[in-house]
Amino acid sequence: MRTALHCSAGDVDDRRHALANAANLLGDDTVALDALVVVFNGDGVGAVRADSPVADDVRGLLARTPEETAAPDAPTVEVCACGNSLAGRDIPADELVYGVDVVSSGMGELTRRQADGYAYIRVP
Amino acid sequence: MRTALHCSAGDVDDRRHALANAANLLGDDTVALDALVVVFNGDGVGAVRADSPVADDVRGLLARTPEETAAPDAPTVEVCACGNSLAGRDIPADELVYGVDVVSSGMGELTRRQADGYAYIRVP
Amino acid sequence: MRTALHCSAGDVDDRRHALANAANLLGDDTVALDALVVVFNGDGVGAVRADSPVADDVRGLLARTPEETAAPDAPTVEVCACGNSLAGRDIPADELVYGVDVVSSGMGELTRRQADGYAYIRVP
Repeated sequence: MRTALHCSAGDVDDRRHALANAANLLGDDTVALDALVVVFNGDGVGAVRADSPVADDVRGLLARTPEETAAPDAPTVEVCACGNSLAGRDIPADELVYGVDVVSSGMGELTRRQADGYAYIRVP
Repeated sequence: MRTALHCSAGDVDDRRHALANAANLLGDDTVALDALVVVFNGDGVGAVRADSPVADDVRGLLARTPEETAAPDAPTVEVCACGNSLAGRDIPADELVYGVDVVSSGMGELTRRQADGYAYIRVP
Repeated sequence: MRTALHCSAGDVDDRRHALANAANLLGDDTVALDALVVVFNGDGVGAVRADSPVADDVRGLLARTPEETAAPDAPTVEVCACGNSLAGRDIPADELVYGVDVVSSGMGELTRRQADGYAYIRVP
């Protein structure tokens, strides 16, 4: 199974909660998860700035990829930020947490992922 | 068709609204609904405590199962609460409305249901 | 690909943001979008009143249909309002932006669309 989480939260506690939702899903042994992507758009994109209060939570998520964990059956983990939202807030891509992908639009990415079989969950 | 509703609301009015959304879906004769599940996680789990202000709305939903209604084509109705969220708030399972299922995680359950063909709607 | 956006926002800025999300999706050239529907329910239905502050944004979306744009590969664009929510707020159908469809329930419509292969995104 594959899941796309969608976070638009501007509030720090909400962003932390969204990232905890992601960690909870990865930690749920009853779900055979193959892939997780967390898509930030709107005010949510501030969460993935390298100096954001939750930047270490984002880094922690990205550190759970199969390469990092050396667990071949670990799900892939991706974090994406909406390019429109970054541009609208004058946040350059080189100020983001290392490993975060900039996508053309959050809406487009969430459409594409669901067309590709991902479940969708709004968080938090 | 089958639908999973997802509620994380801590506010009483929002929780009541979410449960009204569920009732509206069950009451919509233009939809051939086979199954409905309402998944509460995060602050939403307080809604399914036996002493919650909306406990009777939860009981009302659960009373609409095929066995209760004796309508063989009535959709099945389930209400689930996230086990992680309950643990984090020190809410024991025996304090929940009778009939509510505790699931390992809300994220996991919502992933599983969508993999199983359920639509997803965030409420309210 | 096809996408259903779901907006329940009572706040004007949130409604404007939801409609901007729709425009962003239509403007994302990396997504081969065939159809877009925006479903307003709950407090969100106020957005589609003909005298709403965001009525022109709604009209702008509806003006992007293939017939209007004369672009044969343009996605179809629909805007729907929940009949239950309109009735509960005493908003008659003839006070809505021209072209908005009234559906029996937002929950039912979002279920139907996903059963028909639409992706779901909560906005904003």
